[in-house]
Amino acid sequence: MSIAHDLHHDAPHDLTEEVRAIAVRAKAASAVLAQAPTAAKDHALIAAAAELRRRADDLLAANALDVTVAEAAGMAPAFIDRLTLTPARIDAMAAGLNAIAAFPDPVGATLAEWTRPNGLRIQRVRVPLGVVAVIFESRPNVTADAGALCLKAGNAAILRGGSDSLNSAKAIAAALHAGLAEAGLPEDAIQLVATRDRAAVGALLALDDLIDVVVPRGGKSLIARVAEESRIPVLKHLDGICHVYLDRDADPEIARTVTLNAKMRRVGICGAAETLLVDTALSDDVVRPVLDDLIAAGCELRGDAAIRALDARIRPATEEDWATEYLAPILSVRRVDGVEAAIAHIGRYGSHHTECIVTENEAAAEHFFAAVDSAILLLNASTQFADGGEFGMGAEIGISTGKLHARGPVGVNELTTYKYQVRGTGQVRP
Amino acid sequence: MSIAHDLHHDAPHDLTEEVRAIAVRAKAASAVLAQAPTAAKDHALIAAAAELRRRADDLLAANALDVTVAEAAGMAPAFIDRLTLTPARIDAMAAGLNAIAAFPDPVGATLAEWTRPNGLRIQRVRVPLGVVAVIFESRPNVTADAGALCLKAGNAAILRGGSDSLNSAKAIAAALHAGLAEAGLPEDAIQLVATRDRAAVGALLALDDLIDVVVPRGGKSLIARVAEESRIPVLKHLDGICHVYLDRDADPEIARTVTLNAKMRRVGICGAAETLLVDTALSDDVVRPVLDDLIAAGCELRGDAAIRALDARIRPATEEDWATEYLAPILSVRRVDGVEAAIAHIGRYGSHHTECIVTENEAAAEHFFAAVDSAILLLNASTQFADGGEFGMGAEIGISTGKLHARGPVGVNELTTYKYQVRGTGQVRP
Repeated sequence: MSIAHDLHHDAPHDLTEEVRAIAVRAKAASAVLAQAPTAAKDHALIAAAAELRRRADDLLAANALDVTVAEAAGMAPAFIDRLTLTPARIDAMAAGLNAIAAFPDPVGATLAEWTRPNGLRIQRVRVPLGVVAVIFESRPNVTADAGALCLKAGNAAILRGGSDSLNSAKAIAAALHAGLAEAGLPEDAIQLVATRDRAAVGALLALDDLIDVVVPRGGKSLIARVAEESRIPVLKHLDGICHVYLDRDADPEIARTVTLNAKMRRVGICGAAETLLVDTALSDDVVRPVLDDLIAAGCELRGDAAIRALDARIRPATEEDWATEYLAPILSVRRVDGVEAAIAHIGRYGSHHTECIVTENEAAAEHFFAAVDSAILLLNASTQFADGGEFGMGAEIGISTGKLHARGPVGVNELTTYKYQVRGTGQVRP
Repeated sequence: MSIAHDLHHDAPHDLTEEVRAIAVRAKAASAVLAQAPTAAKDHALIAAAAELRRRADDLLAANALDVTVAEAAGMAPAFIDRLTLTPARIDAMAAGLNAIAAFPDPVGATLAEWTRPNGLRIQRVRVPLGVVAVIFESRPNVTADAGALCLKAGNAAILRGGSDSLNSAKAIAAALHAGLAEAGLPEDAIQLVATRDRAAVGALLALDDLIDVVVPRGGKSLIARVAEESRIPVLKHLDGICHVYLDRDADPEIARTVTLNAKMRRVGICGAAETLLVDTALSDDVVRPVLDDLIAAGCELRGDAAIRALDARIRPATEEDWATEYLAPILSVRRVDGVEAAIAHIGRYGSHHTECIVTENEAAAEHFFAAVDSAILLLNASTQFADGGEFGMGAEIGISTGKLHARGPVGVNELTTYKYQVRGTGQVRP
């Protein structure tokens, strides 16, 4: 039983030891999962999806407890919204599990193979990472998403959600456990750190002998804290200061639609554009409609002098604006002298996440793609495509702006590693 | 000029700032290297190889200074041996650079590409990591090897060798710089931290805003210190407690030759076998010649009771022996009850590096390959093949036993990352 013992009880206990015990169980489960057949993993996911739907009333009741407490505590409406489950959201969670089940199993794939002159046959084979810890805020659906992605990749998951969503998370985890049990897989494959004690996170992050990777999901302060404290490798992005660059050879219509979507489709996601760079050589007649669209959609613009000359409604941008991820309907806008200056601006202020160039000039696009050191570069497409689902990865556990292991969307493939399997016939090294 | 200013001078200076300045220059050079043509990088490597040969007398003279000081300090003969350059070793260094030049350029390769239903064309393209720091002991050749591997992969290298080899390293770095200059590449592509002050390592390891990955090469204490201190991701292995398991279905001749080679070819490398596991069901008549070969070759055997019953010359093994990387002509030997027990032993005492099974039974080999969580698994071949060169990677900067990013030999491909390049025609996200 993985979550039956709520760590948040009255009796004295050693939190560090309890968290370690969870990780020890996860390690043991990971050895089973690493060799679990695809059919068993998919069975567990599909059964868990059915359980989520079957238990919808229980989930809503558990969630109502969380929401009531959060409302009484005066949490902000956006927080309450993220915390709240609805029948539609439960259905979406279940659909997510089914979609992950339908995704190809990454484990066991031969990534490369070759034979050496001495006859040794070398294969690089994809295997699970082992134990993955996911630390997130009070968004109940992450419990299901993260647990399912880890399971599909053959990893044991240790989930630590925001304490405000604990009742909801426990109800969701119970449904996942029912699915695991139905498929004959260990319930310890997906464990919840079921405590409100924040020290549990620190205890988890010290277990580099048992946990292979940590994925923090949430706001910058959560991620920064995890990255600072962790003894375990972390897959993360801190900022998503994404840029759209409108080149002198931009198609006017694409400039309008892509910029508006990149900024305003959803302003609170990491792939939302935060800065618009406009080539000095791009006609004002092309630029003005882009700015008009944004203002009409309710976006506040902060521009440099050249941009402000185009429209009196644009406020002055400060140095700080270029380095700010607003996650709000605000966009900083700057004139730059061609693609080279755009690249330099992004190099100075960017966060290596996602950038877009709008141009019909293939050479400019190639140069932008080659010179900008970001996880995702787009030509004539919205930065809001920076998403594992949109990339066709089925689902993502997050986006990585680090360069080691995974860069960009982290899906099931990125939650694996590999081992070398070498077959000989008695070869010895000279 | 990268090494002209020896940081080890008499005037007061701020070491932290000087090390940071090196990293800032490396970052700038990395942007140039990331887009350097293959021909320029190969030209630099080939020219550097020629410079090493041309300057052989200078290198030997610089090395003699280091060796004289080390001898006067009473360093051990093995240390002096590793420190000493000879004409043959200089030639081998140069040949190594030429071999790396001949290896395919990993940068720019399209690792995967696909088109989404909305028409977005997604490509995952291999790019350099950026800035790689290599921290190593007093082995002058690592200066050339590590610098060349980083260059080939398009990375700027910051090299920090053992202080006892500083004169040698400076002479080698000068040859590398001459090669870079001849190819029109920035000399800051390969920089030496030219100080004897050990605090330089700590200063380097704090620069996670400038350095992308750290590779420590050397003994366990060096690697442990780097891993402990580093704010930057580390590619490393701490231990190489490699196992050979002789299954009940082992070919007797392969058992002899592979075991002897795995242990005794070179005892001081990380791929050397440290523990021999012998299936209880394997006939004593097969086991005795294996042990005889080892003893005849000068290997000390430490066995459990069952093994000691075979030969009075075998000393008793303690619990500690199973967890010891001897790096010496010593082997611990244990009887285990079949492949499952061998897997359990390796799971308990192993270091996730390299293990070998000797068997003619394909099912046993498959099970061993699937269940043992190590970077490299071998069937009927010596553990001493755990080497990037032997894998056909051209050369390696080390072996990784971590699961993130690179596992097993770290060659030029493993010194890269990727970015996504997405081409659209005005797509926006619904």
